[in-house]
Amino acid sequence: MSKKVIITIDRQYGSGGRAIGEQLAKDLGIPLYDKEISQMAAEKNGMSKEVFEKADETAASSLLYSVVTGAYMFGNHVSPALDLPINDKVFIAQTEIIKTLAHKGSCVIVGRCADYILRNDPDMINVFIHAYLPSRIERAIKEYDLPPEKVEMQISKIDKKRGNYYHYYTGEKWGNAIHYKLCIDSSVLGIEGSVAVIKAFIENKDKENRHKK
Amino acid sequence: MSKKVIITIDRQYGSGGRAIGEQLAKDLGIPLYDKEISQMAAEKNGMSKEVFEKADETAASSLLYSVVTGAYMFGNHVSPALDLPINDKVFIAQTEIIKTLAHKGSCVIVGRCADYILRNDPDMINVFIHAYLPSRIERAIKEYDLPPEKVEMQISKIDKKRGNYYHYYTGEKWGNAIHYKLCIDSSVLGIEGSVAVIKAFIENKDKENRHKK
Repeated sequence: MSKKVIITIDRQYGSGGRAIGEQLAKDLGIPLYDKEISQMAAEKNGMSKEVFEKADETAASSLLYSVVTGAYMFGNHVSPALDLPINDKVFIAQTEIIKTLAHKGSCVIVGRCADYILRNDPDMINVFIHAYLPSRIERAIKEYDLPPEKVEMQISKIDKKRGNYYHYYTGEKWGNAIHYKLCIDSSVLGIEGSVAVIKAFIENKDKENRHKK
Repeated sequence: MSKKVIITIDRQYGSGGRAIGEQLAKDLGIPLYDKEISQMAAEKNGMSKEVFEKADETAASSLLYSVVTGAYMFGNHVSPALDLPINDKVFIAQTEIIKTLAHKGSCVIVGRCADYILRNDPDMINVFIHAYLPSRIERAIKEYDLPPEKVEMQISKIDKKRGNYYHYYTGEKWGNAIHYKLCIDSSVLGIEGSVAVIKAFIENKDKENRHKK
Protein backbone atom coordinates (compact mmCIF):
# COMPACT_ATOMS: atom_id res chain seq x y z
CA MET A 1 0.00 0.00 0.00
CA SER A 2 1.67 3.20 -1.17
CA LYS A 3 -1.00 5.81 -0.44
CA LYS A 4 -1.38 7.12 3.11
CA VAL A 5 -4.56 6.00 4.85
CA ILE A 6 -6.00 6.67 8.29
CA ILE A 7 -8.76 4.25 9.25
CA THR A 8 -10.79 5.21 12.30
CA ILE A 9 -13.02 2.54 13.78
CA ASP A 10 -16.04 3.27 15.92
CA ARG A 11 -17.82 0.19 17.20
CA GLN A 12 -20.70 -1.22 19.19
CA TYR A 13 -19.55 -3.24 22.18
CA GLY A 14 -19.10 -6.91 21.22
CA SER A 15 -19.19 -6.22 17.47
CA GLY A 16 -15.54 -7.19 17.00
CA GLY A 17 -14.52 -3.66 15.96
CA ARG A 18 -11.20 -3.84 17.80
CA ALA A 19 -10.39 -7.29 16.31
CA ILE A 20 -11.28 -5.99 12.83
CA GLY A 21 -8.95 -3.03 13.38
CA GLU A 22 -6.14 -5.34 14.53
CA GLN A 23 -6.47 -7.65 11.53
CA LEU A 24 -6.68 -4.70 9.14
CA ALA A 25 -3.57 -3.05 10.63
CA LYS A 26 -1.71 -6.36 10.41
CA ASP A 27 -2.74 -6.95 6.78
CA LEU A 28 -1.78 -3.41 5.77
CA GLY A 29 1.42 -3.44 7.82
CA ILE A 30 0.50 -0.25 9.70
CA PRO A 31 0.16 0.47 13.46
CA LEU A 32 -3.07 0.31 15.43
CA TYR A 33 -3.83 2.69 18.28
CA ASP A 34 -6.50 2.06 20.88
CA LYS A 35 -5.80 2.31 24.63
CA GLU A 36 -2.23 3.31 23.75
CA ILE A 37 -3.59 6.79 22.97
CA SER A 38 -4.68 7.21 26.55
CA GLN A 39 -1.27 6.09 27.85
CA MET A 40 0.61 8.39 25.44
CA ALA A 41 -1.57 11.35 26.38
CA ALA A 42 -1.03 10.71 30.10
CA GLU A 43 2.73 10.39 29.65
CA LYS A 44 3.00 13.52 27.52
CA ASN A 45 1.08 15.57 30.07
CA GLY A 46 2.78 14.07 33.10
CA MET A 47 -0.57 12.93 34.48
CA SER A 48 -1.75 9.77 36.20
CA LYS A 49 -2.43 6.88 33.80
CA GLU A 50 -5.18 5.59 36.10
CA VAL A 51 -7.12 8.87 36.01
CA PHE A 52 -6.73 8.96 32.21
CA GLU A 53 -7.98 5.42 31.84
CA LYS A 54 -10.99 6.17 34.02
CA ALA A 55 -11.91 9.20 31.92
CA ASP A 56 -11.10 7.46 28.61
CA GLU A 57 -14.08 7.47 26.19
CA THR A 58 -16.31 8.95 28.88
CA ALA A 59 -18.10 12.28 28.59
CA ALA A 60 -17.68 14.84 31.37
CA SER A 61 -20.44 14.20 33.87
CA SER A 62 -20.71 17.06 36.36
CA LEU A 63 -18.92 20.22 37.30
CA LEU A 64 -18.62 19.12 40.91
CA TYR A 65 -16.82 15.93 39.88
CA SER A 66 -14.53 17.84 37.59
CA VAL A 67 -13.66 20.48 40.15
CA VAL A 68 -12.79 17.85 42.74
CA THR A 69 -10.82 15.64 40.36
CA GLY A 70 -9.20 18.61 38.63
CA ALA A 71 -7.98 20.03 41.93
CA TYR A 72 -6.67 16.63 42.93
CA MET A 73 -4.86 16.09 39.64
CA PHE A 74 -3.37 19.44 38.85
CA GLY A 75 -2.71 20.82 42.33
CA ASN A 76 -3.61 24.18 43.78
CA HIS A 77 -1.81 26.37 41.27
CA VAL A 78 -4.92 26.31 39.06
CA SER A 79 -8.13 27.60 40.53
CA PRO A 80 -10.44 24.56 40.70
CA ALA A 81 -13.47 26.74 40.02
CA LEU A 82 -12.05 27.82 36.65
CA ASP A 83 -10.70 24.41 35.77
CA LEU A 84 -11.98 22.27 32.90
CA PRO A 85 -13.65 18.94 33.70
CA ILE A 86 -11.03 16.19 33.83
CA ASN A 87 -12.75 14.34 31.00
CA ASP A 88 -12.41 17.41 28.79
CA LYS A 89 -8.71 17.63 29.67
CA VAL A 90 -8.28 13.99 28.73
CA PHE A 91 -10.14 14.62 25.46
CA ILE A 92 -7.92 17.61 24.63
CA ALA A 93 -4.75 15.67 25.46
CA GLN A 94 -5.90 12.70 23.34
CA THR A 95 -6.82 15.06 20.48
CA GLU A 96 -3.22 16.25 20.28
CA ILE A 97 -1.89 12.68 20.33
CA ILE A 98 -4.35 11.55 17.62
CA LYS A 99 -3.41 14.49 15.36
CA THR A 100 0.30 13.74 15.84
CA LEU A 101 -0.15 10.02 15.08
CA ALA A 102 -2.25 10.72 11.97
CA HIS A 103 0.34 13.23 10.75
CA LYS A 104 3.12 10.65 11.13
CA GLY A 105 1.66 8.13 8.68
CA SER A 106 -0.91 5.45 7.89
CA CYS A 107 -2.58 3.87 10.93
CA VAL A 108 -5.78 2.43 12.39
CA ILE A 109 -7.31 4.31 15.33
CA VAL A 110 -10.05 2.77 17.47
CA GLY A 111 -12.67 5.00 19.15
CA ARG A 112 -11.97 8.31 20.94
CA CYS A 113 -13.87 10.44 18.37
CA ALA A 114 -10.81 10.17 16.11
CA ASP A 115 -13.02 10.57 13.03
CA TYR A 116 -14.29 13.91 14.31
CA ILE A 117 -10.79 15.07 15.33
CA LEU A 118 -9.47 14.18 11.85
CA ARG A 119 -12.60 15.23 9.94
CA ASN A 120 -10.68 17.54 7.59
CA ASP A 121 -8.01 14.96 6.72
CA PRO A 122 -8.66 13.68 3.16
CA ASP A 123 -6.76 10.45 3.95
CA MET A 124 -9.19 9.56 6.76
CA ILE A 125 -11.83 6.86 6.26
CA ASN A 126 -14.15 6.50 9.25
CA VAL A 127 -15.78 3.12 9.72
CA PHE A 128 -18.62 2.15 12.06
CA ILE A 129 -18.87 -1.52 13.03
CA HIS A 130 -22.09 -2.87 14.50
CA ALA A 131 -23.63 -6.32 14.83
CA TYR A 132 -26.81 -8.22 15.57
CA LEU A 133 -27.34 -8.37 19.35
CA PRO A 134 -27.21 -12.19 19.77
CA SER A 135 -23.86 -12.25 17.96
CA ARG A 136 -22.53 -9.48 20.25
CA ILE A 137 -23.74 -11.38 23.33
CA GLU A 138 -21.96 -14.52 22.12
CA ARG A 139 -18.78 -12.60 21.41
CA ALA A 140 -18.80 -10.70 24.71
CA ILE A 141 -19.20 -13.94 26.70
CA LYS A 142 -16.42 -15.65 24.73
CA GLU A 143 -13.92 -12.79 24.38
CA TYR A 144 -14.43 -10.85 27.59
CA ASP A 145 -15.42 -13.74 29.81
CA LEU A 146 -18.57 -11.97 30.98
CA PRO A 147 -21.20 -13.91 32.97
CA PRO A 148 -24.12 -14.67 30.58
CA GLU A 149 -26.72 -13.14 32.93
CA LYS A 150 -24.92 -9.79 32.97
CA VAL A 151 -23.76 -9.50 29.37
CA GLU A 152 -26.81 -7.75 27.89
CA MET A 153 -26.76 -5.08 30.59
CA GLN A 154 -23.03 -4.55 30.05
CA ILE A 155 -23.51 -4.16 26.28
CA SER A 156 -26.26 -1.63 26.81
CA LYS A 157 -24.23 0.29 29.43
CA ILE A 158 -21.05 0.54 27.34
CA ASP A 159 -22.89 1.49 24.14
CA LYS A 160 -24.75 4.20 26.02
CA LYS A 161 -21.45 5.50 27.39
CA ARG A 162 -19.85 5.49 23.92
CA GLY A 163 -22.89 7.20 22.39
CA ASN A 164 -22.90 9.91 25.07
CA TYR A 165 -19.18 10.43 24.69
CA TYR A 166 -19.43 10.80 20.90
CA HIS A 167 -22.38 13.15 21.12
CA TYR A 168 -20.82 15.26 23.88
CA TYR A 169 -17.58 15.94 21.99
CA THR A 170 -18.81 16.02 18.39
CA GLY A 171 -22.42 17.19 18.62
CA GLU A 172 -23.29 14.32 16.26
CA LYS A 173 -25.35 11.20 16.78
CA TRP A 174 -23.25 8.08 17.26
CA GLY A 175 -24.07 5.43 14.65
CA ASN A 176 -25.84 7.78 12.24
CA ALA A 177 -24.81 6.36 8.85
CA ILE A 178 -24.33 9.74 7.19
CA HIS A 179 -21.38 10.61 9.46
CA TYR A 180 -19.35 7.58 8.35
CA LYS A 181 -17.75 6.69 5.02
CA LEU A 182 -18.52 3.01 5.66
CA CYS A 183 -20.72 1.08 8.12
CA ILE A 184 -20.65 -2.70 8.33
CA ASP A 185 -22.74 -5.30 10.15
CA SER A 186 -19.93 -7.62 11.25
CA SER A 187 -22.35 -10.40 12.23
CA VAL A 188 -22.95 -11.00 8.51
CA LEU A 189 -19.28 -11.09 7.47
CA GLY A 190 -17.23 -12.06 10.51
CA ILE A 191 -13.84 -10.48 11.23
CA GLU A 192 -12.06 -11.61 8.01
CA GLY A 193 -14.96 -10.58 5.77
CA SER A 194 -15.32 -7.16 7.39
CA VAL A 195 -11.59 -6.56 6.94
CA ALA A 196 -11.89 -7.58 3.26
CA VAL A 197 -14.72 -5.06 2.69
CA ILE A 198 -12.75 -2.24 4.36
CA LYS A 199 -9.79 -3.11 2.14
CA ALA A 200 -12.08 -3.02 -0.93
CA PHE A 201 -13.23 0.44 0.20
CA ILE A 202 -9.62 1.69 0.52
CA GLU A 203 -8.69 0.33 -2.93
CA ASN A 204 -11.72 1.87 -4.59
CA LYS A 205 -11.18 5.23 -2.88
CA ASP A 206 -7.68 5.27 -4.39
CA LYS A 207 -9.08 4.39 -7.84
CA GLU A 208 -11.71 7.13 -7.60
CA ASN A 209 -9.07 9.68 -6.53
CA ARG A 210 -6.87 8.75 -9.50
CA HIS A 211 -9.91 8.98 -11.76
CA LYS A 212 -10.78 12.47 -10.47
CA LYS A 213 -7.26 13.80 -11.08
CA MET B 1 -23.03 -15.81 -9.17
CA SER B 2 -24.67 -19.03 -8.04
CA LYS B 3 -26.08 -18.10 -4.62
CA LYS B 4 -29.36 -16.19 -4.46
CA VAL B 5 -29.03 -12.59 -3.33
CA ILE B 6 -31.54 -9.81 -2.77
CA ILE B 7 -29.94 -6.38 -2.54
CA THR B 8 -32.18 -3.61 -1.26
CA ILE B 9 -30.97 -0.06 -1.73
CA ASP B 10 -32.13 2.84 0.36
CA ARG B 11 -30.64 6.18 -0.62
CA GLN B 12 -30.38 9.87 0.04
CA TYR B 13 -31.61 11.98 -2.86
CA GLY B 14 -28.76 12.74 -5.26
CA SER B 15 -26.44 10.11 -3.76
CA GLY B 16 -26.50 7.97 -6.92
CA GLY B 17 -28.25 5.07 -5.15
CA ARG B 18 -30.40 4.23 -8.16
CA ALA B 19 -27.39 4.36 -10.54
CA ILE B 20 -25.43 2.11 -8.15
CA GLY B 21 -28.33 -0.34 -8.10
CA GLU B 22 -28.52 -0.31 -11.92
CA GLN B 23 -24.79 -0.95 -12.35
CA LEU B 24 -24.85 -3.68 -9.70
CA ALA B 25 -27.84 -5.43 -11.31
CA LYS B 26 -26.12 -5.23 -14.71
CA ASP B 27 -22.83 -6.63 -13.36
CA LEU B 28 -24.58 -9.48 -11.54
CA GLY B 29 -26.97 -10.17 -14.44
CA ILE B 30 -30.08 -9.84 -12.26
CA PRO B 31 -33.15 -7.58 -12.54
CA LEU B 32 -33.57 -4.22 -10.82
CA TYR B 33 -36.92 -3.02 -9.51
CA ASP B 34 -37.66 0.58 -8.65
CA LYS B 35 -40.73 2.40 -9.98
CA GLU B 36 -41.72 -0.84 -11.72
CA ILE B 37 -42.96 -2.07 -8.31
CA SER B 38 -45.52 0.69 -8.19
CA GLN B 39 -46.72 -0.10 -11.73
CA MET B 40 -46.93 -3.85 -11.02
CA ALA B 41 -48.87 -3.25 -7.80
CA ALA B 42 -51.32 -0.92 -9.58
CA GLU B 43 -51.84 -3.42 -12.40
CA LYS B 44 -52.34 -6.36 -10.05
CA ASN B 45 -54.93 -4.48 -8.02
CA GLY B 46 -56.66 -2.92 -11.01
CA MET B 47 -56.02 0.55 -9.65
CA SER B 48 -54.95 3.82 -11.23
CA LYS B 49 -51.21 4.04 -11.94
CA GLU B 50 -51.30 7.81 -11.37
CA VAL B 51 -52.73 7.46 -7.86
CA PHE B 52 -50.16 4.76 -7.09
CA GLU B 53 -47.31 6.93 -8.31
CA LYS B 54 -48.52 9.86 -6.22
CA ALA B 55 -48.62 7.70 -3.08
CA ASP B 56 -45.37 5.90 -3.90
CA GLU B 57 -42.78 6.23 -1.10
CA THR B 58 -45.04 8.65 0.75
CA ALA B 59 -46.41 8.05 4.23
CA ALA B 60 -50.15 8.37 4.84
CA SER B 61 -50.79 11.95 5.84
CA SER B 62 -54.28 12.34 7.30
CA LEU B 63 -57.45 10.36 7.76
CA LEU B 64 -59.47 12.97 5.95
CA TYR B 65 -57.24 12.73 2.89
CA SER B 66 -57.43 8.95 2.97
CA VAL B 67 -61.18 8.84 3.31
CA VAL B 68 -61.67 11.20 0.40
CA THR B 69 -59.07 9.50 -1.82
CA GLY B 70 -60.14 6.02 -0.76
CA ALA B 71 -63.75 6.74 -1.63
CA TYR B 72 -62.69 8.21 -4.95
CA MET B 73 -60.50 5.24 -5.83
CA PHE B 74 -62.49 2.27 -4.69
CA GLY B 75 -66.03 3.50 -5.13
CA ASN B 76 -68.90 3.30 -2.72
CA HIS B 77 -68.92 -0.47 -2.14
CA VAL B 78 -66.42 0.04 0.71
CA SER B 79 -67.43 2.29 3.55
CA PRO B 80 -65.05 5.27 3.37
CA ALA B 81 -65.13 5.63 7.15
CA LEU B 82 -63.69 2.13 7.58
CA ASP B 83 -61.31 2.42 4.68
CA LEU B 84 -57.51 2.37 4.96
CA PRO B 85 -55.55 5.45 3.86
CA ILE B 86 -54.66 5.18 0.18
CA ASN B 87 -50.94 5.32 1.00
CA ASP B 88 -51.37 2.29 3.28
CA LYS B 89 -53.17 0.43 0.49
CA VAL B 90 -50.34 1.23 -1.89
CA PHE B 91 -47.84 0.05 0.74
CA ILE B 92 -49.71 -3.24 1.24
CA ALA B 93 -50.00 -3.82 -2.52
CA GLN B 94 -46.29 -3.08 -2.99
CA THR B 95 -45.42 -5.38 -0.09
CA GLU B 96 -47.04 -8.31 -1.90
CA ILE B 97 -45.21 -7.49 -5.13
CA ILE B 98 -41.85 -7.15 -3.34
CA LYS B 99 -42.31 -10.51 -1.58
CA THR B 100 -43.22 -12.19 -4.86
CA LEU B 101 -40.22 -10.69 -6.69
CA ALA B 102 -37.80 -11.67 -3.91
CA HIS B 103 -39.21 -15.19 -3.87
CA LYS B 104 -38.66 -15.54 -7.63
CA GLY B 105 -34.89 -15.03 -7.51
CA SER B 106 -31.93 -12.70 -7.14
CA CYS B 107 -32.66 -9.02 -7.72
CA VAL B 108 -31.92 -5.43 -6.69
CA ILE B 109 -34.81 -3.45 -5.17
CA VAL B 110 -34.64 0.32 -4.71
CA GLY B 111 -36.51 2.00 -1.82
CA ARG B 112 -40.08 1.20 -0.73
CA CYS B 113 -39.01 -0.21 2.69
CA ALA B 114 -38.06 -3.43 0.88
CA ASP B 115 -35.46 -4.19 3.57
CA TYR B 116 -38.13 -4.10 6.26
CA ILE B 117 -40.57 -6.17 4.18
CA LEU B 118 -37.85 -8.80 3.57
CA ARG B 119 -36.23 -8.53 7.03
CA ASN B 120 -36.51 -12.27 7.71
CA ASP B 121 -35.04 -13.31 4.36
CA PRO B 122 -31.45 -14.58 4.96
CA ASP B 123 -30.55 -13.80 1.33
CA MET B 124 -31.34 -10.10 1.78
CA ILE B 125 -28.56 -7.53 2.12
CA ASN B 126 -29.84 -4.02 2.79
CA VAL B 127 -27.61 -1.18 1.72
CA PHE B 128 -27.90 2.52 2.55
CA ILE B 129 -26.24 4.97 0.15
CA HIS B 130 -25.56 8.51 1.24
CA ALA B 131 -23.21 11.26 0.09
CA TYR B 132 -21.66 14.57 1.02
CA LEU B 133 -24.15 17.37 0.31
CA PRO B 134 -22.09 19.29 -2.31
CA SER B 135 -21.69 16.08 -4.30
CA ARG B 136 -25.47 15.45 -4.13
CA ILE B 137 -26.17 19.00 -5.26
CA GLU B 138 -23.82 18.56 -8.23
CA ARG B 139 -25.41 15.23 -9.13
CA ALA B 140 -28.99 16.49 -8.80
CA ILE B 141 -28.28 19.47 -11.08
CA LYS B 142 -26.58 17.24 -13.67
CA GLU B 143 -28.82 14.17 -13.60
CA TYR B 144 -32.24 15.64 -12.84
CA ASP B 145 -31.72 18.98 -14.53
CA LEU B 146 -32.80 20.90 -11.43
CA PRO B 147 -32.29 24.67 -11.27
CA PRO B 148 -29.25 25.33 -9.00
CA GLU B 149 -31.18 27.77 -6.77
CA LYS B 150 -33.82 25.15 -5.97
CA VAL B 151 -31.73 22.01 -5.67
CA GLU B 152 -30.89 22.19 -1.95
CA MET B 153 -34.54 22.65 -1.00
CA GLN B 154 -35.53 19.74 -3.23
CA ILE B 155 -32.89 17.47 -1.64
CA SER B 156 -34.09 18.37 1.83
CA LYS B 157 -37.76 17.90 0.87
CA ILE B 158 -37.31 14.47 -0.72
CA ASP B 159 -35.05 13.15 2.04
CA LYS B 160 -37.60 14.28 4.63
CA LYS B 161 -40.35 12.50 2.68
CA ARG B 162 -38.27 9.31 2.43
CA GLY B 163 -37.37 9.44 6.12
CA ASN B 164 -41.01 9.93 7.15
CA TYR B 165 -42.11 7.11 4.88
CA TYR B 166 -39.51 4.71 6.29
CA HIS B 167 -40.31 5.62 9.87
CA TYR B 168 -44.08 5.44 9.33
CA TYR B 169 -44.05 1.93 7.89
CA THR B 170 -41.13 0.35 9.80
CA GLY B 171 -41.02 2.23 13.11
CA GLU B 172 -37.27 2.56 12.55
CA LYS B 173 -35.12 5.61 11.93
CA TRP B 174 -34.11 6.03 8.30
CA GLY B 175 -30.31 6.09 7.91
CA ASN B 176 -29.53 4.61 11.33
CA ALA B 177 -26.48 2.46 10.56
CA ILE B 178 -27.52 -0.43 12.80
CA HIS B 179 -30.54 -1.23 10.61
CA TYR B 180 -28.41 -1.83 7.51
CA LYS B 181 -25.88 -4.53 6.65
CA LEU B 182 -23.83 -1.97 4.72
CA CYS B 183 -23.78 1.83 4.44
CA ILE B 184 -21.59 3.64 1.94
CA ASP B 185 -20.69 7.28 1.34
CA SER B 186 -20.83 7.27 -2.46
CA SER B 187 -19.13 10.66 -2.73
CA VAL B 188 -15.87 8.96 -1.68
CA LEU B 189 -16.09 6.05 -4.13
CA GLY B 190 -18.28 7.13 -7.04
CA ILE B 191 -20.73 4.74 -8.71
CA GLU B 192 -18.19 2.11 -9.84
CA GLY B 193 -16.39 2.02 -6.49
CA SER B 194 -19.62 1.74 -4.50
CA VAL B 195 -20.70 -1.16 -6.71
CA ALA B 196 -17.31 -2.84 -6.16
CA VAL B 197 -17.68 -2.58 -2.37
CA ILE B 198 -21.21 -4.03 -2.46
CA LYS B 199 -19.88 -6.91 -4.57
CA ALA B 200 -17.06 -7.45 -2.03
CA PHE B 201 -19.73 -7.58 0.69
CA ILE B 202 -21.75 -10.21 -1.23
CA GLU B 203 -18.66 -12.37 -1.85
CA ASN B 204 -17.56 -12.22 1.77
CA LYS B 205 -21.06 -13.00 3.05
CA ASP B 206 -20.97 -16.18 0.95
CA LYS B 207 -17.53 -17.08 2.33
CA GLU B 208 -18.67 -16.50 5.91
CA ASN B 209 -21.77 -18.65 5.34
CA ARG B 210 -19.68 -21.50 3.95
CA HIS B 211 -17.31 -21.12 6.91
CA LYS B 212 -20.20 -21.32 9.43
CA LYS B 213 -21.57 -24.54 7.87
